[in-house]
Amino acid sequence: MSEHIFPLRVYIEDTDMVGIVYHANYLNYFERARSEWAEELGWGLEWQKAQGIYFSVHSANIHFLKPTRAHQHVEVVTRVIEVRPASFLYAQHLRSRDANATMLCRAEIKIACIDQHMRPKALPDNLQTVLNEITEN
Amino acid sequence: MSEHIFPLRVYIEDTDMVGIVYHANYLNYFERARSEWAEELGWGLEWQKAQGIYFSVHSANIHFLKPTRAHQHVEVVTRVIEVRPASFLYAQHLRSRDANATMLCRAEIKIACIDQHMRPKALPDNLQTVLNEITEN
Amino acid sequence: MSEHIFPLRVYIEDTDMVGIVYHANYLNYFERARSEWAEELGWGLEWQKAQGIYFSVHSANIHFLKPTRAHQHVEVVTRVIEVRPASFLYAQHLRSRDANATMLCRAEIKIACIDQHMRPKALPDNLQTVLNEITEN
Amino acid sequence: MSEHIFPLRVYIEDTDMVGIVYHANYLNYFERARSEWAEELGWGLEWQKAQGIYFSVHSANIHFLKPTRAHQHVEVVTRVIEVRPASFLYAQHLRSRDANATMLCRAEIKIACIDQHMRPKALPDNLQTVLNEITEN
Repeated sequence: MSEHIFPLRVYIEDTDMVGIVYHANYLNYFERARSEWAEELGWGLEWQKAQGIYFSVHSANIHFLKPTRAHQHVEVVTRVIEVRPASFLYAQHLRSRDANATMLCRAEIKIACIDQHMRPKALPDNLQTVLNEITEN
Repeated sequence: MSEHIFPLRVYIEDTDMVGIVYHANYLNYFERARSEWAEELGWGLEWQKAQGIYFSVHSANIHFLKPTRAHQHVEVVTRVIEVRPASFLYAQHLRSRDANATMLCRAEIKIACIDQHMRPKALPDNLQTVLNEITEN
Repeated sequence: MSEHIFPLRVYIEDTDMVGIVYHANYLNYFERARSEWAEELGWGLEWQKAQGIYFSVHSANIHFLKPTRAHQHVEVVTRVIEVRPASFLYAQHLRSRDANATMLCRAEIKIACIDQHMRPKALPDNLQTVLNEITEN
Repeated sequence: MSEHIFPLRVYIEDTDMVGIVYHANYLNYFERARSEWAEELGWGLEWQKAQGIYFSVHSANIHFLKPTRAHQHVEVVTRVIEVRPASFLYAQHLRSRDANATMLCRAEIKIACIDQHMRPKALPDNLQTVLNEITEN
């Protein structure tokens, strides 16, 4: 419950001339995983629109650890590590989907809750409850 | 056998300010499907490298039919419709993964076989055989 | 007047593991050039929003002619070659910005005019006039 | 000399369904600026290949400050703030290219010098000299 695993595959579009995943594209992988998890937990895009609340990426601290290659099978591991009144913090990493589970990239990503005018907005109580439940201690 | 189905999901990175999939990104979806099928058939990236043969996108004729939205579940349908000595032609389309199976985008994509110097190269006999077997008549 | 030249540079983000521009990214280059020209002619995004008219990419027929490399200086040449009541057709190509002016990629791209509900909409008279003036005969 | 300014324009491909630049794409803008500056200083891709030395993005700490919109004119400001034997640190920010010069995004990006086997490699003396000269004190 407190950890979400999202499998994905690397495609040629993700690589660059060096033959490995272009660094900015790891942020795409992490976003896909957060989106899937949010939807599974009931606060996906539809819910956000209905509530007039949006999750905006506030900041990211990302470490590119090992090269990731085209057609590699990988997975994103996502946890919530801190919840505040109008923001929360994810720890995410990408690892190879094999016996080694090599860590390829890791990041802490802070999400700010905003309204449709991009002003900070407090997390609704029920979301705060869910987030606190899934937060690692 | 003669048709390959590749399911995928649309993510925010694929959309643009109009709220739908940015047109160039459909080509990414089609490439992912071709890559998966090539690998299933035994002529993926590893095989290509070992053989010194590469599949290069020669041309594409693509029609953007309906808007595709973030988080939509879709699938790429891929067929081979023509095989020539040093090239072959795919017909691909993207459709919604629901009861309607709405066609969202379709394309014909010609692949040229080239060597490491980007010169045309004849398809190996065994690949030609496989391609002819899976080609629609 | 009837031809628009848009210089740009290839960056690492545009390349793939083969070391050259990934095929889908040529569509990005062509879109940038069309956007710049539309704005210079007075029917850019602001105008579109004010008029409730949008330019949607209907279809593209694209030929990938030569490899384009990271940091290469290139330019997009754009012409309008046909105007219809609710659509128009661009011919675009990418060429190297050097003495050879090597043609790297060319495409015909059809734009449909639509309203905010994505239904076809006739081109306004003044736009039709401008388009006819810049159309190649 | 100690600060590099790189102007660029936001295109539709950079935006997402929220109508603003998708967060991962700011890393593309920063990479373009670093590439241009490296080339102007004589240690671009050609030099790297000749030396067998490569600049790999080691980590990034990035803050997304304000929304950036399609067709906005912006510029990347790049400085080097620290030089070590086999790595160096950039401070970069994106700001609007107008009288306000609004800061839109800022990052610290660490570059590791590696050889063709992706092992750390000491910066050549002449590069170390140049980097120290352009480093902010």
